[in-house]
Amino acid sequence: MADMKTATQAEKALYRFDRSIELFERATKVIPCGIYGHHSPAIRTPGATPYYFERGEGSHVWDVDGNEYIDWICSYGPMLLGHRHPKVEAAAARQREKGDCLSAPGEVMVELAERLVDITPFADWFVFARNGSDMTTWALQVARAHTGRDKVIMAQGTYHGKDAWCTPGHAGLTAADRQNMLTFPWNDLAALRRLADRHRGEVAAVILTPYHFPNWWDNELPAEGFWQGVRTVCDAEGIVLVLDDVRTCFRLHMGGSGEYFGVRPDLAAYCKAIANGYTLSACGGRNEFKTAASKVFLAGSYWFSAVPMAAAIATLDELEACDGIARMAEIGEIFCKGLTDCAASHGLQLTCSGHPAMPFVRFTNDDDMYRNQVWCGEMARRGVFVHPHHNLFVSTAHTQEDVNRTIEAAGDAFRVVKEQFGS
Amino acid sequence: MADMKTATQAEKALYRFDRSIELFERATKVIPCGIYGHHSPAIRTPGATPYYFERGEGSHVWDVDGNEYIDWICSYGPMLLGHRHPKVEAAAARQREKGDCLSAPGEVMVELAERLVDITPFADWFVFARNGSDMTTWALQVARAHTGRDKVIMAQGTYHGKDAWCTPGHAGLTAADRQNMLTFPWNDLAALRRLADRHRGEVAAVILTPYHFPNWWDNELPAEGFWQGVRTVCDAEGIVLVLDDVRTCFRLHMGGSGEYFGVRPDLAAYCKAIANGYTLSACGGRNEFKTAASKVFLAGSYWFSAVPMAAAIATLDELEACDGIARMAEIGEIFCKGLTDCAASHGLQLTCSGHPAMPFVRFTNDDDMYRNQVWCGEMARRGVFVHPHHNLFVSTAHTQEDVNRTIEAAGDAFRVVKEQFGS
Repeated sequence: MADMKTATQAEKALYRFDRSIELFERATKVIPCGIYGHHSPAIRTPGATPYYFERGEGSHVWDVDGNEYIDWICSYGPMLLGHRHPKVEAAAARQREKGDCLSAPGEVMVELAERLVDITPFADWFVFARNGSDMTTWALQVARAHTGRDKVIMAQGTYHGKDAWCTPGHAGLTAADRQNMLTFPWNDLAALRRLADRHRGEVAAVILTPYHFPNWWDNELPAEGFWQGVRTVCDAEGIVLVLDDVRTCFRLHMGGSGEYFGVRPDLAAYCKAIANGYTLSACGGRNEFKTAASKVFLAGSYWFSAVPMAAAIATLDELEACDGIARMAEIGEIFCKGLTDCAASHGLQLTCSGHPAMPFVRFTNDDDMYRNQVWCGEMARRGVFVHPHHNLFVSTAHTQEDVNRTIEAAGDAFRVVKEQFGS
Repeated sequence: MADMKTATQAEKALYRFDRSIELFERATKVIPCGIYGHHSPAIRTPGATPYYFERGEGSHVWDVDGNEYIDWICSYGPMLLGHRHPKVEAAAARQREKGDCLSAPGEVMVELAERLVDITPFADWFVFARNGSDMTTWALQVARAHTGRDKVIMAQGTYHGKDAWCTPGHAGLTAADRQNMLTFPWNDLAALRRLADRHRGEVAAVILTPYHFPNWWDNELPAEGFWQGVRTVCDAEGIVLVLDDVRTCFRLHMGGSGEYFGVRPDLAAYCKAIANGYTLSACGGRNEFKTAASKVFLAGSYWFSAVPMAAAIATLDELEACDGIARMAEIGEIFCKGLTDCAASHGLQLTCSGHPAMPFVRFTNDDDMYRNQVWCGEMARRGVFVHPHHNLFVSTAHTQEDVNRTIEAAGDAFRVVKEQFGS
């Protein structure tokens, strides 16, 4: 009876996305694809999820149709403490009262660099930019300037940003763009060693994410000894080890995700969650690379903007104060267990991979991800915003109540999947 | 007697930069170069100008020592309406109350694209990113995707951003980075034609700024017929004409700087002044290129952030309402004339080049720019922030009184230059 009642209420409340669709139609006239990038509806189920959001508060967002969602995407990472966190907003407002984009940096740039150096065991210095790609690409240039070598090794299928050497796109590239890139399968230390041997004296950098989150597929943690092996290869061959911590930073460890996996990189790129949604990225490095870092040009229109830097300091303060790393892992674990158990109770099998604070969720028997697309659409119609082919993100604002409501919606959505696919 | 009194007052008031220098010393420990990019003190006169700013209001900024300046750098372009413009700040605050960096774009993205298409004669669509480089590089990828060609022609010595194909830096680059770049001297239409002939069927794009602002030297306006000639070459050879309007946008013409010079590009990159200091860039294009634009990957961590887009709409509103383009040109003209006349009265010759809203000012007989460095330091000590080797920027917030005070300080600063150099 209780189940019946829940189902009936949920059916009544199913969301519609009329205003989203109307706006999208307007958008396609003046914006290529209407919406581009990660969220492109072309690669999702058209019309099954909201396209435009109106506002956010804590772990919840509202779309332009007025529908409220529990937000498990967190703007693809940035919302570490939830939307509009009062302490971050207050710090940003205090800085904004003085100035943001001035003709020179503010004192806050020095304070933030000092703070990051203080909490990051491997790093002696930091620089700041606006986007993750700014920093992953710059780190490779620093590695090249330091070593005098050109080639770079990366793992197959890793997203390191939009720049030509790594974009997941295919259009508009030239052969020169990837001429110096070498790839090996994640976790295959022997393959990495072979590449380093074959290109001895030519490899400037190995760039890796802390663990493997390929586009559209299960995330993979480092195998036992993998990171230690990578470090050994780099040290033996004079290769600079660059950690792309853009997606993961401050969700796994306050000292950088290398600390979580027991490896210390030479350079690490941060972005996303560093300032709880304010536009900032950073790259840290060891003193050994400071001279090369000083030589590689680094500039952009708003790169000294002070508000995001003030927001970053407040974000780090709050993350420490609320023991956020542990909290996100805990919520992520009950989220994954709750979903998996609920799926099982409907005769469906779910796979949750990666770190629990950033889980990648899919139906185990769903190679074309079509079940995932249907399920995510059904979740959206029931007030839960999840993504069919990208890892999710937990914030410190997510509560047990959010998880409970998510599992409740998931039960109904699993029922639809079961009806449509049978398994 | 009046002159004596002014000089005495000015001498009394000479600024010191103790706190700036103290902060810079702290910064060098944790940031390569202490400050990087355009403003690197390493390429200016160390200790002669402020390094860190505290706040800004209208056309004035205050450094960390509490010194107040008339700001003729305007954050290297972004501050089109002056710092903390009340209407822009109000629009940004309204959007911020709802949300900024959400998991999908806001309605404001569609509104801004519609607005830009409406005011931009050549453009049928727009996309948005965070920095000028994001858009100049993406525009070249769109041109390559559209034409199936690899090569790009640019003018020698032009700054198009930090990316490897165009950075003014030298460290960390590989031969592959510029393998597809061809250059010709600005205004040399015959040289452009020869390049296009020699590489017939290989050139995807010509990318140019509306007029030529090389680093460290006089700016150069387009020669009579230059832009028409460029358009003709592009049309004849099926080359995409990309206008890099990043530095100039909304200081020359509301419809894009191409309109000011009588040329319509195929794609144009905007940034800097588009949102009065909020972090936003844009690229507009003709419908012919919309399919290619849809295919080239475009994404970044905060690229759908709604606050900068709301700020951009408010900036365009205010710029139209106050007839800002005309106002900046007018102030720029009296600024240049006032400085030049004042220099002449001290027996010194100044050259002001480029558009008056973005003048490049130097001593005519100053090939090594050393007079300029000394003069800018003396100006800073007297409360005027100007740059020795970069074009300046006028905002709509600058007043006749600002110009008067600038000329007054300039008189004293010219006296120092005259004493030191003799001419």
